[in-house]
Amino acid sequence: MTNYRLALIPGDGIGVDVTDATMEVLRAAARNRFTLEAETFPWSCEYYLEHGQMMPGDGIETLKGFDAIYLGAVGWPATVPDSVSLHGLLLPIRKAFTQYANIRPHRLLPGVEGPLKAEGFDILCIRENTEGEYSGAGGRVHMGQDNEVATEVAVFTRKGVERILRFGFEQARARRKHLTSVTKSNAQKYSMVFWDEVTKEIAAEYPDVTVSHMHIDAMAAKMVMAPQDLDVIVASNLFGDILTDLGAAIQGGLGFAASANICPDRTGPSMFEPVHGSAPDIAGKDIANPIAAIWSGAMMLEHLGEAETAAEILSAIEAATAQGIGTRPGSHSTSDITAAILAALEA
Amino acid sequence: MTNYRLALIPGDGIGVDVTDATMEVLRAAARNRFTLEAETFPWSCEYYLEHGQMMPGDGIETLKGFDAIYLGAVGWPATVPDSVSLHGLLLPIRKAFTQYANIRPHRLLPGVEGPLKAEGFDILCIRENTEGEYSGAGGRVHMGQDNEVATEVAVFTRKGVERILRFGFEQARARRKHLTSVTKSNAQKYSMVFWDEVTKEIAAEYPDVTVSHMHIDAMAAKMVMAPQDLDVIVASNLFGDILTDLGAAIQGGLGFAASANICPDRTGPSMFEPVHGSAPDIAGKDIANPIAAIWSGAMMLEHLGEAETAAEILSAIEAATAQGIGTRPGSHSTSDITAAILAALEA
Ligand SMILES: CC(C)[C@H](C(=O)O)[C@@H](O)C(=O)O
Ligand SMILES: CC(C)[C@H](C(=O)O)[C@@H](O)C(=O)O
Repeated sequence: MTNYRLALIPGDGIGVDVTDATMEVLRAAARNRFTLEAETFPWSCEYYLEHGQMMPGDGIETLKGFDAIYLGAVGWPATVPDSVSLHGLLLPIRKAFTQYANIRPHRLLPGVEGPLKAEGFDILCIRENTEGEYSGAGGRVHMGQDNEVATEVAVFTRKGVERILRFGFEQARARRKHLTSVTKSNAQKYSMVFWDEVTKEIAAEYPDVTVSHMHIDAMAAKMVMAPQDLDVIVASNLFGDILTDLGAAIQGGLGFAASANICPDRTGPSMFEPVHGSAPDIAGKDIANPIAAIWSGAMMLEHLGEAETAAEILSAIEAATAQGIGTRPGSHSTSDITAAILAALEA
Repeated sequence: MTNYRLALIPGDGIGVDVTDATMEVLRAAARNRFTLEAETFPWSCEYYLEHGQMMPGDGIETLKGFDAIYLGAVGWPATVPDSVSLHGLLLPIRKAFTQYANIRPHRLLPGVEGPLKAEGFDILCIRENTEGEYSGAGGRVHMGQDNEVATEVAVFTRKGVERILRFGFEQARARRKHLTSVTKSNAQKYSMVFWDEVTKEIAAEYPDVTVSHMHIDAMAAKMVMAPQDLDVIVASNLFGDILTDLGAAIQGGLGFAASANICPDRTGPSMFEPVHGSAPDIAGKDIANPIAAIWSGAMMLEHLGEAETAAEILSAIEAATAQGIGTRPGSHSTSDITAAILAALEA
């Protein structure tokens, strides 16, 4: 029987609550088909306060040997600034393992009421996850003086842009064969003009996929006005970040937004995490919605090659929400929702 | 009687259609209270094809003497890349006259059906308009090679950030006294951490205004999930650009989104323009919705000190939409909508 070795980083706040719920569901779904061997790492803001760093110096080295990483949520801004906690844990993992494709599905689960009048959409957002606007390059000059200048340098490499677009085209091929590349080339004449050029080059390799180009501002409007027209979206790190929160919103909220940080070359582990944050105000109260987390867990199983089990988990989630369980904030506890999904899995 | 000297730049596509409609309404609204003396400049993509530039070398100099600038729309991507047309006309004007505050109101006009279930929102977006992510700094190295790198440098100055925040706080003071500053300081640790710091400093000058901080991704979700919680939003050039298209979407579409590029120091003319683009496909067909353009014209009159006339135009727009005129794409022609607004003005 195949055994998968998982590194669990529950992280902060509700990250812990939803990681527990997810592992319970994944283990039940595995049945006697495969086993999950999980090692838990306490890396978090609490860990930072004790050790002065979000993870040990050899953290990345330690994670290397695992088949996949599952992360709950990172951040506890009351004690550690987000700029420290995220740059000390989440972002370095994405970069170290070349998890260059952040993929996030956006559709309404049955029984969930979204904020839009529109309902029938099924979008797959693919976000570049290692460079661009979140490269971490830049600086500050004359700090605190009246001539202070701060810069943030978006860095795009040909390799980085080519590979995310190719990944996007492959996904589009497996879906409805329509890809929209999102840029802002009318105002950012270096980075985004470059991205547009590369898109045209890569598109030539995929004549069976229809390509659209859209500016980020127009796309934000489109996702609200006509989301049903969209299939696969490919965007830079920042633009993808924004569009996937918007995607989460139109699917009813962050409680339903799953995500995968994929290393397509499989040179290192991929990482799976719900889009939501650590939500300090509701942490540990058994009220966080675990659906996004469990869905992310299903994406992990799919990535590991257990597509059938992943599909069963998705069906169980849908069976639960179709009965109105977990569909509205506060309607059910974390454990009630988990129990409903477990029950649907059994059935 | 006061005479205002206006520079009209109808620009491309439907920019021409809606500028005509706007001037007709503004002139009627002026009655015998003031006069509008308009000079029209043919600067556009057509002009570019003839002259090799979007406006003459002394274009900015020429505009200097006017009380205000009214712009229809710029861009005709089939013949001139947007990166050329926008950087040759719209963006240089915003920068040359230090029109650092781009303000855009987002609310539903009576009779307009938005895409959201939510209805009772009234948001004022204030976008920094001269620097940040659209500074135009950056470059490309190893063009076309496999080690090509493109950079886009977001540049924020203390002066630039302070003044837009102060402007925002003044607006918040005149409204519901709530300001939300939008950044992404958890991933952009130079520019956005700086912006957050400056926000805290300026907030201390406005103890009567409640301040919230929000990341751009969370704000995009918020505008869709709970727009009624928002009052004044202040954001960088790019973030404001995205949020105002989203704002246009939730108010029913770009046909309703007005905007002003304000030079608060009045060292040069301010510029008023609808948010929509030139829409080549429907240009010259008398089908563009002129409401955003006319609303922008009202904002121009308000800026010139004619608040009463501006309010009358707004009421006339609302009277027309309340009767269902211009509320749905294609329901009425440009001239029908204009006529309805003119009729409401008379009444
Ligand atoms: C927490 C933050 C750094 C992160 C990001 O922007 O990448 C989050 O918003 C996300 O979308 O995964
Ligand atoms: C056309 C483009 C350069 C412009 C901008 O991004 O500033 C437009 O989108 C706007 O919002 O005014």
